Amino acid sequence: VDIPAVLRTFVAEQKTCVIATTRRDGSIRQSVVVCAFDDDRILASTTASRAKARDIERSSWASLCIFGHEQPYPSVTIEGSARIIRDNVGDLTRKLYASLRGTSDGAPTDEQLAAAGRVLIEISPDHWYGASYLEVNAEG
Amino acid sequence: VDIPAVLRTFVAEQKTCVIATTRRDGSIRQSVVVCAFDDDRILASTTASRAKARDIERSSWASLCIFGHEQPYPSVTIEGSARIIRDNVGDLTRKLYASLRGTSDGAPTDEQLAAAGRVLIEISPDHWYGASYLEVNAEG
Repeated sequence: VDIPAVLRTFVAEQKTCVIATTRRDGSIRQSVVVCAFDDDRILASTTASRAKARDIERSSWASLCIFGHEQPYPSVTIEGSARIIRDNVGDLTRKLYASLRGTSDGAPTDEQLAAAGRVLIEISPDHWYGASYLEVNAEG
Repeated sequence: VDIPAVLRTFVAEQKTCVIATTRRDGSIRQSVVVCAFDDDRILASTTASRAKARDIERSSWASLCIFGHEQPYPSVTIEGSARIIRDNVGDLTRKLYASLRGTSDGAPTDEQLAAAGRVLIEISPDHWYGASYLEVNAEG
């Protein structure tokens, strides 16, 4: 699905979101990740050993809720198919790092990322909904 | 489960969280709600017609991810059994309103709440996990 520019801008401003995945038993797991659009996909960084990475490898799906912490608390949820990227994560992870910190100074090297077991979560948006206090339709 | 004081304080500071519920087809629904502890339960306000209220009536479960928007992005997820409270929601909803706005000025009346179809979500914490950048164990 095409994501409207206003939502892309909002994601870029917030930089973080709550990712929800499905555990083996069907229950919900939530945690906070740094996220950013890269063309038409959303990328987030995690470690391969994290439970959410295993959830995604099993279910191939993730939900992201992005919201602003100031009133009126604008928010939107984006969901879609998801996969774990293990190869050549260096450049993309450094882009995420720079988007979060506003600088690439101190960004991790390929060796540091490999040692930490860093991988990327790639979400291909399938549906967005619940857009509140954003100049866009409620879903798409 | 007992929720440590540091997490109670954190929830009170953040005031909002991302609630995740399970749709009829087993997929995840996420949205932002105002939330606050009331003794050992967590309360959030929504409308009876909202999909998340219907999810909770069907599944009796909810997951709440609370996080701070400033680096280092402290966060924790609390999950537990959940139900919808429809009776006498006025006083509790006004408490939530006041906790969010810092004043009870302009808080909705019972009549306004009824007209808006406002109900409360009650979550009884069963498990918390993923505590990051909070002076507490990672889970409990």
